[in-house]
Amino acid sequence: MSELKNDRFLRALLKEPVDVTPVWMMRQAGRYLPEYKATRARAGSFMDLCMNPELACEVTMQPLERYPLDAAILFSDILTVPDAMGLELRFAEGEGPIFDRPVRSEADVKRLPVTDPHAELQYVMDAVSTIRKELDGRVPLIGFAGSPWTLATYMVEGGTSKEYAYVKGMLFDRPDLMHQLLDTTARSVTAYLNAQIDAGAQAIQIFDTWGGMLTPRDYNEFSLRYMQQIVDGLKRESEGRKVPVILFTKGGGQWLEAMAETGADALGLDWTTDLDEARRRVGDRVALQGNMDPTVLYASPERIRQEVATILESYGEGSGHVFNLGHGIHQHVDPEHAGAFIEAVHELSTKYHPSLT
Amino acid sequence: MSELKNDRFLRALLKEPVDVTPVWMMRQAGRYLPEYKATRARAGSFMDLCMNPELACEVTMQPLERYPLDAAILFSDILTVPDAMGLELRFAEGEGPIFDRPVRSEADVKRLPVTDPHAELQYVMDAVSTIRKELDGRVPLIGFAGSPWTLATYMVEGGTSKEYAYVKGMLFDRPDLMHQLLDTTARSVTAYLNAQIDAGAQAIQIFDTWGGMLTPRDYNEFSLRYMQQIVDGLKRESEGRKVPVILFTKGGGQWLEAMAETGADALGLDWTTDLDEARRRVGDRVALQGNMDPTVLYASPERIRQEVATILESYGEGSGHVFNLGHGIHQHVDPEHAGAFIEAVHELSTKYHPSLT
Repeated sequence: MSELKNDRFLRALLKEPVDVTPVWMMRQAGRYLPEYKATRARAGSFMDLCMNPELACEVTMQPLERYPLDAAILFSDILTVPDAMGLELRFAEGEGPIFDRPVRSEADVKRLPVTDPHAELQYVMDAVSTIRKELDGRVPLIGFAGSPWTLATYMVEGGTSKEYAYVKGMLFDRPDLMHQLLDTTARSVTAYLNAQIDAGAQAIQIFDTWGGMLTPRDYNEFSLRYMQQIVDGLKRESEGRKVPVILFTKGGGQWLEAMAETGADALGLDWTTDLDEARRRVGDRVALQGNMDPTVLYASPERIRQEVATILESYGEGSGHVFNLGHGIHQHVDPEHAGAFIEAVHELSTKYHPSLT
Repeated sequence: MSELKNDRFLRALLKEPVDVTPVWMMRQAGRYLPEYKATRARAGSFMDLCMNPELACEVTMQPLERYPLDAAILFSDILTVPDAMGLELRFAEGEGPIFDRPVRSEADVKRLPVTDPHAELQYVMDAVSTIRKELDGRVPLIGFAGSPWTLATYMVEGGTSKEYAYVKGMLFDRPDLMHQLLDTTARSVTAYLNAQIDAGAQAIQIFDTWGGMLTPRDYNEFSLRYMQQIVDGLKRESEGRKVPVILFTKGGGQWLEAMAETGADALGLDWTTDLDEARRRVGDRVALQGNMDPTVLYASPERIRQEVATILESYGEGSGHVFNLGHGIHQHVDPEHAGAFIEAVHELSTKYHPSLT
């Protein structure tokens, strides 16, 4: 593998000194980019795009051609894992993801296998190694997976949900089954992420999109516990370098202390928690990633710049901050606004890293 | 007005001793009740039901006929206020609320009037006095309104929204306009709630359903500030008794301290904050209302009872807790489960009020 030319993303995650605050955007390879839409149209369905390593590599690289981003993230979907577990994922136009065989009964749960990532998910590993070759050491590549709880919401509901009636029904009335489902999923995710690391992923993010829908008690027992299991099972070093792990629970601002205790290197934050408060609470133990409201990208470049300045000031001086949005970039954002955002982070952050500038 | 036979709801809000923990459910008059659906079918549209004082009274009373609830809440909708401000509300089948004339431009904002509650909204006051007569002192009647920020999301978006692109666009790029819109709305809401108090409302709840979508900075400036304006402008006494005010920001668990500083009597909590932690943080200043995940009502009566016990134990001994769900009751809940919930609160809470039992 070629030497990493820009490693400030990895350094910030480990709280090592950096010259400027690194930045990337969740869902940076996505529908707000016309070139993404063009590749997507060529690929066929969304899953066809995910399963084609060459095209997945192409869309992963697209935002890096436009912007001086400090990290690339594998183009894929968190639902590839339950798909590989036999749930038959498809995306219906305008409806989001659908599993035709949701997990509802005891028999359904007991039937779930721990996936072999080198069988059903080899296409993801092929994408990772293809992207690493294409990156040629430009920036690090982030691998990722959904948290077991977040995956379980889709697996039990059979798709997206407003009320989570089925999945919470199982959690409340059959916690034994829910634990079994989550354990099987956590083991699948651990193997999947370790295979991504072997294939070349240099940092890992676990997306817990729906952990914030739980009570603090249930969050600890049904979401955090299985992210802990994954963190404990991950290879934390590869190619002679530490592989940092980022936990991101959307709506998890109240639980940062518990999240920091898992041994993750960094916590992702949505925009409802100020960075200064988060840093005061857990900044001695973990790096922080975030946290601009993605909707700010609809505002003027001047306003975007002002928001970036406020967030940088909130974190303050020193390493340990990776700039990002608090959730994925929205599809109707003007790509020039995304550019203004990334430029502002680099320009305005030099003064917070005086030792290296 | 006849004397109040059961005032434990009002007493708990003022932290005065009670015999058992009082309980009501947000959206207790609603679609989970077959008798509600029958009245709704007779009324015509949802707005026809809201605007008919006799039928609004009928559905307000329905849950009280079934369950030993400790409060009634006016049957209405938070969007009656922007409707009265000229935005022409309608409910499209399966689409939720729609304003055919959303507020987008400077001219739109400047055109907005402060509503006279005795003109366009007199039907609400008629409902309040009709319900008070029907209640005949059985339990207190809660009046309510939406927070200015929450109303603004609908007014600017023209309906429900996932991204809040228009309303946050105005907030970020034209904060002056947003403040004007919020001020006009806050003055309308204040007059509206004072008219409800004059008509017989004995407690007030302000629903800030979408305050939790903001950064802490923007929450303070664009949501809390206008709830403060309302709290400051409310008649806090009526019929020789204090009229308690409850603030409920869904997703506001991180901001309880700021909310408690408004001078509200109680804070509503969703299920993502434990009551013991909330009580430790603000329980010396305000009462707390909440906070069972409404999805627990899909579980078995035994599991519901167990969750009620956990929440009661979390609050602990003494007055200052009104039991409720952390959000409105879901439409597919079995009415018998709601009954089991209410019974459990009364039965299991006696031991936390030793002085009066």
